[in-house]
Amino acid sequence: MSDLPLPPGDWPVFRPGWVWLCGAGPGDPGLLTLHGLNALRQADVIVHDALIDPAMLGWAPQAEPVFMGKRGGQPSPKQGDISRRLVELSTDGKRVLRLKGGDPFVFGRGGEEAQTLIQQGVQVRIVPGITAGIGGLAYAGIPATHRDVNQAVSFITGHDMAGQPMSVADWAPLAQGGGVLVIYMGLRHAGRISAGLIAGGRAPEEPVAVVRNASLPDQQVLETTLAGLPSDLADSGLTPPALIVVGKVVTMRQALDWRAYATGAVPRNIDPLGTG
Amino acid sequence: MSDLPLPPGDWPVFRPGWVWLCGAGPGDPGLLTLHGLNALRQADVIVHDALIDPAMLGWAPQAEPVFMGKRGGQPSPKQGDISRRLVELSTDGKRVLRLKGGDPFVFGRGGEEAQTLIQQGVQVRIVPGITAGIGGLAYAGIPATHRDVNQAVSFITGHDMAGQPMSVADWAPLAQGGGVLVIYMGLRHAGRISAGLIAGGRAPEEPVAVVRNASLPDQQVLETTLAGLPSDLADSGLTPPALIVVGKVVTMRQALDWRAYATGAVPRNIDPLGTG
Repeated sequence: MSDLPLPPGDWPVFRPGWVWLCGAGPGDPGLLTLHGLNALRQADVIVHDALIDPAMLGWAPQAEPVFMGKRGGQPSPKQGDISRRLVELSTDGKRVLRLKGGDPFVFGRGGEEAQTLIQQGVQVRIVPGITAGIGGLAYAGIPATHRDVNQAVSFITGHDMAGQPMSVADWAPLAQGGGVLVIYMGLRHAGRISAGLIAGGRAPEEPVAVVRNASLPDQQVLETTLAGLPSDLADSGLTPPALIVVGKVVTMRQALDWRAYATGAVPRNIDPLGTG
Repeated sequence: MSDLPLPPGDWPVFRPGWVWLCGAGPGDPGLLTLHGLNALRQADVIVHDALIDPAMLGWAPQAEPVFMGKRGGQPSPKQGDISRRLVELSTDGKRVLRLKGGDPFVFGRGGEEAQTLIQQGVQVRIVPGITAGIGGLAYAGIPATHRDVNQAVSFITGHDMAGQPMSVADWAPLAQGGGVLVIYMGLRHAGRISAGLIAGGRAPEEPVAVVRNASLPDQQVLETTLAGLPSDLADSGLTPPALIVVGKVVTMRQALDWRAYATGAVPRNIDPLGTG
């Protein structure tokens, strides 16, 4: 990577024995930050999961990749095993880059990993990443906020603190406030999400989108409604990883699907909210 | 910038007459994405606001900077004026980089600007950025989510759709759901936020942090409670731009303040939640 100077500046030096927890963004390698690239250039070892684009690992040919993610039908490695491995590698004096999809502090257990490392006396640096619920949705032409639509956007995981799927009753209070909801890891619970949010007061006809592989070339988008979500999702055959977005911002995609226009498509509706 | 090759890859070409809406991140220029750097390298003109670090403009010496932000006691330029300027510049055949603090789709009016451009037949590309409510908070040692604390985090602006501050009654419903709240542009409304969230059922002793200039060298952090926020904020003398964070994740800063450890500080408490 000697052919890859960063812009002039006081770029952080990756010291031996440190662990940098870095978010790789939603998928498109171009959404890595400059700090992330600086980390890749200096790392001795990269501990990563299955969501990391191989191209990104290719930018760090000097580093040893250590895969710790879910492979095939195998169970995921336990969080304790990952944290222990990070501590071991740093104790060996390696520059350890822990590279995670999205942002390490958004449903990524980065806080737990950082806490374990700090408890063991390991120095850490956090390198934030673009979370899929913002940057991934943008590639689908869906703004997380839009002034005429919402003053609040909530990011929610489809699992509770014990890792169990939430019940219909758990979802109802999340319907409050009227903001846009972006649900991570919810695809297998779409029936409960739909029923719970409608029970909590959200309109059955509220626009919903499911975005799979957000920001990647094979991104897929399903547009439906809160009531239609379970059956339309089943018909679509979409599988994880995917986000579920609930709210009127989904209709903005009719105007803002910029990726489609770059290849010649025409906007469906340049004023989806009727605001002129 | 000829000395700044990106990693090998199929980097997007910035075509004349296009507008790229790009998020610059919360402040630290290292939080710009690689797509953002690729945009800076090719832009003819950069339309930016006051939150953009001058170092970043320095990475694009070939581009003409056009400042459209709030300066001194002057009123901000109107959104319509900015959108019109973007259309004019693109019609002149410029490669127009619209560079905004944070992410263009998180309370940034990026959706409005993109819609206006598309309505005028201008091709746009969205380049997401790190939003301060995630990446900025990480620099203060506050994770937006933490598995033992919250399954939901909400990002809220302190102004309603007409640009007016929200009332105490407006804030109460946002207390529901129990998730972490990250409030943008709320500093001048701290009294109403505190009263409204307590009226809505949040505990007066719930931890709160105010983070000013998140991710920058002069970042300032105030730790308080929901009830103590108005008076502690007044005593602190903190001024905008700042985020307000409400929730137990704030206590994780006692363990996760990694920036302080890099300069020799010792963790206050390596197990703030008592989870071991």
